[in-house]
Amino acid sequence: MIRAGFIDWMVSTGANLYHDAHWGLGLALHQGSSDVDDRALHRDGVVRIYDIVFEFGVLLETDSYLRQVMNGAEFQRSMSTAELHHLLGKYLAAREEELGLRDTCILSTAYRCGVPLYVSSPGDSSIGLNIADLWLKGRGPHVDVSLDVNETSAIVYAAKRNGGASGVLILGGGSPKNFVLQTEPQINEILGLEGEGHDYFVQVTDARPDTGGLSGATPSEAVSWGKVDPARLPDSVVVYTDSTIALPLLTAYALARAPKRSLRHLYERRGEMLERLRKDFLERQARLEKEARGDPT
Amino acid sequence: MIRAGFIDWMVSTGANLYHDAHWGLGLALHQGSSDVDDRALHRDGVVRIYDIVFEFGVLLETDSYLRQVMNGAEFQRSMSTAELHHLLGKYLAAREEELGLRDTCILSTAYRCGVPLYVSSPGDSSIGLNIADLWLKGRGPHVDVSLDVNETSAIVYAAKRNGGASGVLILGGGSPKNFVLQTEPQINEILGLEGEGHDYFVQVTDARPDTGGLSGATPSEAVSWGKVDPARLPDSVVVYTDSTIALPLLTAYALARAPKRSLRHLYERRGEMLERLRKDFLERQARLEKEARGDPT
Amino acid sequence: MIRAGFIDWMVSTGANLYHDAHWGLGLALHQGSSDVDDRALHRDGVVRIYDIVFEFGVLLETDSYLRQVMNGAEFQRSMSTAELHHLLGKYLAAREEELGLRDTCILSTAYRCGVPLYVSSPGDSSIGLNIADLWLKGRGPHVDVSLDVNETSAIVYAAKRNGGASGVLILGGGSPKNFVLQTEPQINEILGLEGEGHDYFVQVTDARPDTGGLSGATPSEAVSWGKVDPARLPDSVVVYTDSTIALPLLTAYALARAPKRSLRHLYERRGEMLERLRKDFLERQARLEKEARGDPT
Amino acid sequence: MIRAGFIDWMVSTGANLYHDAHWGLGLALHQGSSDVDDRALHRDGVVRIYDIVFEFGVLLETDSYLRQVMNGAEFQRSMSTAELHHLLGKYLAAREEELGLRDTCILSTAYRCGVPLYVSSPGDSSIGLNIADLWLKGRGPHVDVSLDVNETSAIVYAAKRNGGASGVLILGGGSPKNFVLQTEPQINEILGLEGEGHDYFVQVTDARPDTGGLSGATPSEAVSWGKVDPARLPDSVVVYTDSTIALPLLTAYALARAPKRSLRHLYERRGEMLERLRKDFLERQARLEKEARGDPT
Repeated sequence: MIRAGFIDWMVSTGANLYHDAHWGLGLALHQGSSDVDDRALHRDGVVRIYDIVFEFGVLLETDSYLRQVMNGAEFQRSMSTAELHHLLGKYLAAREEELGLRDTCILSTAYRCGVPLYVSSPGDSSIGLNIADLWLKGRGPHVDVSLDVNETSAIVYAAKRNGGASGVLILGGGSPKNFVLQTEPQINEILGLEGEGHDYFVQVTDARPDTGGLSGATPSEAVSWGKVDPARLPDSVVVYTDSTIALPLLTAYALARAPKRSLRHLYERRGEMLERLRKDFLERQARLEKEARGDPT
Repeated sequence: MIRAGFIDWMVSTGANLYHDAHWGLGLALHQGSSDVDDRALHRDGVVRIYDIVFEFGVLLETDSYLRQVMNGAEFQRSMSTAELHHLLGKYLAAREEELGLRDTCILSTAYRCGVPLYVSSPGDSSIGLNIADLWLKGRGPHVDVSLDVNETSAIVYAAKRNGGASGVLILGGGSPKNFVLQTEPQINEILGLEGEGHDYFVQVTDARPDTGGLSGATPSEAVSWGKVDPARLPDSVVVYTDSTIALPLLTAYALARAPKRSLRHLYERRGEMLERLRKDFLERQARLEKEARGDPT
Repeated sequence: MIRAGFIDWMVSTGANLYHDAHWGLGLALHQGSSDVDDRALHRDGVVRIYDIVFEFGVLLETDSYLRQVMNGAEFQRSMSTAELHHLLGKYLAAREEELGLRDTCILSTAYRCGVPLYVSSPGDSSIGLNIADLWLKGRGPHVDVSLDVNETSAIVYAAKRNGGASGVLILGGGSPKNFVLQTEPQINEILGLEGEGHDYFVQVTDARPDTGGLSGATPSEAVSWGKVDPARLPDSVVVYTDSTIALPLLTAYALARAPKRSLRHLYERRGEMLERLRKDFLERQARLEKEARGDPT
Repeated sequence: MIRAGFIDWMVSTGANLYHDAHWGLGLALHQGSSDVDDRALHRDGVVRIYDIVFEFGVLLETDSYLRQVMNGAEFQRSMSTAELHHLLGKYLAAREEELGLRDTCILSTAYRCGVPLYVSSPGDSSIGLNIADLWLKGRGPHVDVSLDVNETSAIVYAAKRNGGASGVLILGGGSPKNFVLQTEPQINEILGLEGEGHDYFVQVTDARPDTGGLSGATPSEAVSWGKVDPARLPDSVVVYTDSTIALPLLTAYALARAPKRSLRHLYERRGEMLERLRKDFLERQARLEKEARGDPT
């Protein structure tokens, strides 16, 4: 989907990127079963994620790799998670080539395609843990959370400013869902710029609205917040099923039926989009302050 | 529960703290219904969170308050979310007093009780959006994500070092669940210090294991990671129900049956606990490097 | 709840009545765990219902008891499930007395209180299996399914004819839910008599509407069918939680707050209510046929 | 699937067969939305099943058709639901031909293919309601519930006696699930004949085991009951998704990959299979009685 140009930018959890990166390092994960004795696994140094099992050493090796890479000169600064993941993707892409592999994981694929990858909870994953390890030694990157918030809003702002549209495809829920959807309130509720909410909303989830949580909140509820354009509500879709069922179907359908799109390389355009957002925001602020002082506008 | 000493520290989403803070500002939220026309709500300036409704102005007023407070001198630096929320709690506690209120929200209550509040996705909420607004103007706090990761691990490390135990009570799932549980892998997998996993694990959730996601991952799966002590697995509890059912029952039970505990004031002890973690980690690192060089240990 | 007069009549599955009857026979069920090796249980003659375990012999003994009782003279005829369960309840009540027990199970309690118990799928349970065993030998009761349908409709019809109201409390969903709710369509859609749907609708379930199934169908959907009175829709309640959480809370609340109601003994009034339904139906049929023939009405 | 020979027999709810029969009568159901005002629908004579809507007249016309057909001579007796549905299917097949339709519904298709259709809760659906309407006038069929129980067990018994295997595919849960699975306990626990449980178990459901209900009970739990052969447990499958997602995928796969099977016409073989079950059962009973009397065997 990334290579076919169907994904312009992405918000993930760190855990998805971390465990996916095992492939880029040539490490093995195995299809197992969820019906096992976890105390025996723990004793035998085997780690389980539902029905996937792998050796504890896979974690240690990945951790060691990440710390070594992030100890390098390029990482010794403050950055957005998009930059962090782009840099990690660069190293993983190189590692893949050494191993005779290609595009085995999201980090390397997104790096090659210029797709910015954000993580809404950057301390919350083994990537974050390894950064925190380096931090204890006074080394490593610092994630600038506000840069992430503003870059993602700037991407949506740019899409809509140019007469384009913004569509969100949500697999699951939780913090990444909110992080994608809050771009619209950031633009209009907080920064006071124009915006009518996302134009397309497709969510695949097992979270139901009645829990009252964000994961199960409907596109209709999002309309009341200005997160989804009310005019587009009838087109919004919520599919209550597992992402592992829906995503292969969606992917097969998209690749079979839709022509590929040329890559947008939004990663390279982050700076320019952010500056546009900042400029429009500061101009509006100045106008408001002038008005507040009673100056003629 | 906080005032009774049953909560030593806490990980939340920013949204929970933000909307809860409306109470501290004397703003009204209303019990409504989920069965409404959200386009009409949007037109009428009413925002909905499942069956709770409130005026859009409540958001604007809270946003304005947060930006004004976080524009102050105390906030112009890098800090953990515990510090951020402690400072916000201080201002909200003062605001409550002006309004003749007390302990109306978690932020002010936790401030008074010295309970550190962490948020695993600090950019992902209206608190994060308002910080990002200030950031565009070169103002406001910077969240140091690694400080959060290490402070939370240091709290668990201190509890276990002192011959004590660590118990987690999880309402829901998602990023906060992982952030609490990853303290143990941070201690033993990443930092290489001793630890056998949390001693008590109680989760209230509607997320089932079969989705393969972290929210529904069982304490048994956590054992395979060293997140939960295998010896304590039979005592772990997962309750599949809504937190709004379970929490009042748990609270009523705890307050009725268990004697209050004296407040631990972990907020004030963060620095000391972090230094202990850092010291033990750096000593171990030095020892490992020495061994690697072949020096006699 | 039955003894306090809060349950006038009931629809259950046969399995609930069958396994509950083990108590009436003084047989033991044990609280166990769902996390066990079922092949080992099968080998050891232990049967599991989620986290309840018991010896296979409990089934054999209950089966043997049921076949012996239902081989008796009183059972050698066609009957509604209300009669079947009343007769079984009579024998279980006597057995309880021999054992020094009282009201250990629904069958004996409902027998003593004159509460009719219907089962919508009478062949589908071990009670049904044992009846089918006797049937192979030319013995035992025959369930008259249409008598069940008409008796239950007659109960609702009588309640509403007398200026009273009809309230349904649904735990779970499935066939018993539909069987209770179809009483209204039976009265007005099929038999052509007057009725405006049930007045009170409370459901405790984990079935969500989006599955499209009957279990998760909302009271609102039931309004479109005339199963629920549209005027009472705002008072209807769906609670998404486990019955084992909701029922103890409801029971404790009802017993603590509401005065007991005198027992209605609907079991004894089945015949009279059915005759009223039949009479009104046949009169309407005669009137319609007369009209169809062009006779003056 | 039926026509391709992949379905030998079936247990359904009456509601599925009833609403499906609208197609056979040339009546229209419409794809709608679940997000509608049901009071307005009720006022306008529109009935809703989740996101399917149709005119109230569709029900009345189907009811009238069913009563007219079931008033005929062939229906004035006691029968299993397999016979009831076979007869209904015969009339619907004829009606389809009048309308220039073919195999528009399960009833007519199963009739043509000789696939017996059972309903575990025969009073619980509009088919049952219309039978109950006729019953009030002393007309119509009587469902012999025990005949259903024994015929379904006889089908499984025959499959296994002949060295064959028994596989169950379960869509959803509830009463039909139990009715299919109880065939094995009927054979070995109740009737005392040989049997080791079903060989193949595939369930598509959204019901989770933790509710403790039958719908979510796992094949593993079924092993403890002898409902599933322990040796085949590792091959059993539970898919947690909507049947409307799984069934089209399964069907497309089966039709594309598996050769068609010749139709078994089990409907025509019910009598012979039942007699075999009865004979073996009565012989065993006689043997047991002889042993109990101390006669030499």
